[in-house]
Amino acid sequence: MENNTAKNSALGTSSISYGRPVLIMGSGSIVGQMEDEGPLSGSFDKVSDDKNDMFGADSWEKAESALQKEAVAITLSKTGAETRDIRYIYAGDLLGQNIASSFGLVDYQIPLFGLYGACSTCGESLCLGSMCIAAGYADRVISLTSSHFASAQKEFRYPLEYGGQRPLYASWTVTGSAGFLLQNINASGKSVSGRPIKNEYEGKYQKKIGITGITGGRIEDFGIKDSFNMGCAMAPAAAWTIATNLKDFGRKPQDYDAIFTGDLGSVGQEALFKLLQQESIDISDRHYDCGMIIYDAEKQDVHAGGSGCGCSAVVLSAHILPKLAMGDWKRILFVPTGALLNKTSFNEGQNVPGIAHGVVIEALDGE
Amino acid sequence: MENNTAKNSALGTSSISYGRPVLIMGSGSIVGQMEDEGPLSGSFDKVSDDKNDMFGADSWEKAESALQKEAVAITLSKTGAETRDIRYIYAGDLLGQNIASSFGLVDYQIPLFGLYGACSTCGESLCLGSMCIAAGYADRVISLTSSHFASAQKEFRYPLEYGGQRPLYASWTVTGSAGFLLQNINASGKSVSGRPIKNEYEGKYQKKIGITGITGGRIEDFGIKDSFNMGCAMAPAAAWTIATNLKDFGRKPQDYDAIFTGDLGSVGQEALFKLLQQESIDISDRHYDCGMIIYDAEKQDVHAGGSGCGCSAVVLSAHILPKLAMGDWKRILFVPTGALLNKTSFNEGQNVPGIAHGVVIEALDGE
Repeated sequence: MENNTAKNSALGTSSISYGRPVLIMGSGSIVGQMEDEGPLSGSFDKVSDDKNDMFGADSWEKAESALQKEAVAITLSKTGAETRDIRYIYAGDLLGQNIASSFGLVDYQIPLFGLYGACSTCGESLCLGSMCIAAGYADRVISLTSSHFASAQKEFRYPLEYGGQRPLYASWTVTGSAGFLLQNINASGKSVSGRPIKNEYEGKYQKKIGITGITGGRIEDFGIKDSFNMGCAMAPAAAWTIATNLKDFGRKPQDYDAIFTGDLGSVGQEALFKLLQQESIDISDRHYDCGMIIYDAEKQDVHAGGSGCGCSAVVLSAHILPKLAMGDWKRILFVPTGALLNKTSFNEGQNVPGIAHGVVIEALDGE
Repeated sequence: MENNTAKNSALGTSSISYGRPVLIMGSGSIVGQMEDEGPLSGSFDKVSDDKNDMFGADSWEKAESALQKEAVAITLSKTGAETRDIRYIYAGDLLGQNIASSFGLVDYQIPLFGLYGACSTCGESLCLGSMCIAAGYADRVISLTSSHFASAQKEFRYPLEYGGQRPLYASWTVTGSAGFLLQNINASGKSVSGRPIKNEYEGKYQKKIGITGITGGRIEDFGIKDSFNMGCAMAPAAAWTIATNLKDFGRKPQDYDAIFTGDLGSVGQEALFKLLQQESIDISDRHYDCGMIIYDAEKQDVHAGGSGCGCSAVVLSAHILPKLAMGDWKRILFVPTGALLNKTSFNEGQNVPGIAHGVVIEALDGE
């Protein structure tokens, strides 16, 4: 750890460095069948047993709510926590008025801060959740996001029944949800319910994982008007957040073992590299995009890759956190990326600006 | 102040008490013509000069974005702050995918946390903004919300052109936006821009105003299915937040000079009193509803009262904060209330649950 004092610091333009890491105690992921047929097959906690990914619901929106409900249930079950052990949930999704979160979480009766950052919401929920924990406002919170291919197509583009063709630079919305239980490193081992909260990573890999800082994103608008071309719409926001994170923390790209964006896809990745090169920043040897990790783009015919709030969330849960805990990486920068639009703004000819929130996650030695 | 130490405390189920108050340095409000024809006429900072409340835009959605942009501009201008003095904005609105906020704020280039809590969003943005400031993560943030009658009708109910009749228990969405500049009490008088930040209330009334605590809300679902009957849909959430705030802080209703809900209207107010009476809590001699304050329900034919994210925001800005600064009240509890639904959830027969976030605001003596 760079920072051994217990004091949190506001750094530079938009970053916060935590005096003590905010522990990620465990995480639960659930995905659709197609997500489990890609390169990460077998690493998710739960997979749809229905080829339409309805998760027992009778509408796509309710299916997405079922995803969120289940992601919380898995997260609680893996860590041994009960609902009363969770002080706040920070959650959001892509549907209008966040209905996937509202109806997915209503039964838990846990105080909720609803968020919207498009596909950057996983980053936003980890930023605000960890800020809450590091400030000592709560011992435990859950950060949570979801997306569903069918509900997102209906919400943003064409009904699936229409059978419209998709351009090659389009991405494919991931059906999935993941929750993350964040805990104060000073929290007592005993919880509100009196049950000990288990650390999933320490249990499996003898290593803890923590969030050590964040960089809040800002809206960047490069004048993109095509709602299929989300990679290019979001690349400037990702470039701003990555460059600002490096500057605020006084780091070089090499200080991160890997830098992940959310869902730029192959087209957006190229734009990101070019934009960062203009600031003499080269991340090309350590950049990964969650949207390019989750699917085999050619075999699965997903064009530019995966997207959606759930994309970066389930890749973080099923792929990145275990690899940190296994020791493959020591410190990573996780930058989910969002495109800010809706049906109306698109039809009224507005641009598609982007936003990206950055989260610094580290494997902890000797904490 | 009850709390003279500099330490923030997590209280009870869902509340946080700040060791030092988070200063509200100033606030900017802008409303439509109808809002300025009600009982608060003359107290808003800016009023539409166009009877259609288009604010210079060519669509209702863009008009709502213009409201947010202007509310920030007024807030900055009244406090003398520049955009670079504001570290984060916490903002949200009622439109799908928060487009009023995204397109209203894009030009400011201030890091943004997008929120969605329906009409409780003003409370949510003040909760999260003050949590950020009290933790020392920022010297200054802006909390901001908006709503627009015409964009909300299009988003949630019927197009205005349809001319549908509204039931008598329906409320009227307020056209308005207000921003609040929150500042750390320990922040240096000089800002990032080097300019001194003025305290609007100290300047006008020789009194400062601060947020001294919050209570995060949770979703309460009482099975209401009628999206016009939002007062009853939100009353259980308001009751939970008020009862939890009193319990968490160890207070009686009499410890608040006034308790404000956001937009329950006359129908929801009755339900709120009944629900609280079941817990032996009587707030009837000190309860006000922003939705009942902003319009003259009979003369203006708004049925149950005003509603919308902008309703509680502009009433706080134009009415409540000045009265606190004038010494009419010493400590108030501000509880904006939100109904969680969208067109799809309503048409698919889902319930309309509610959520309400609580903010404790005090006039400060000798701080």
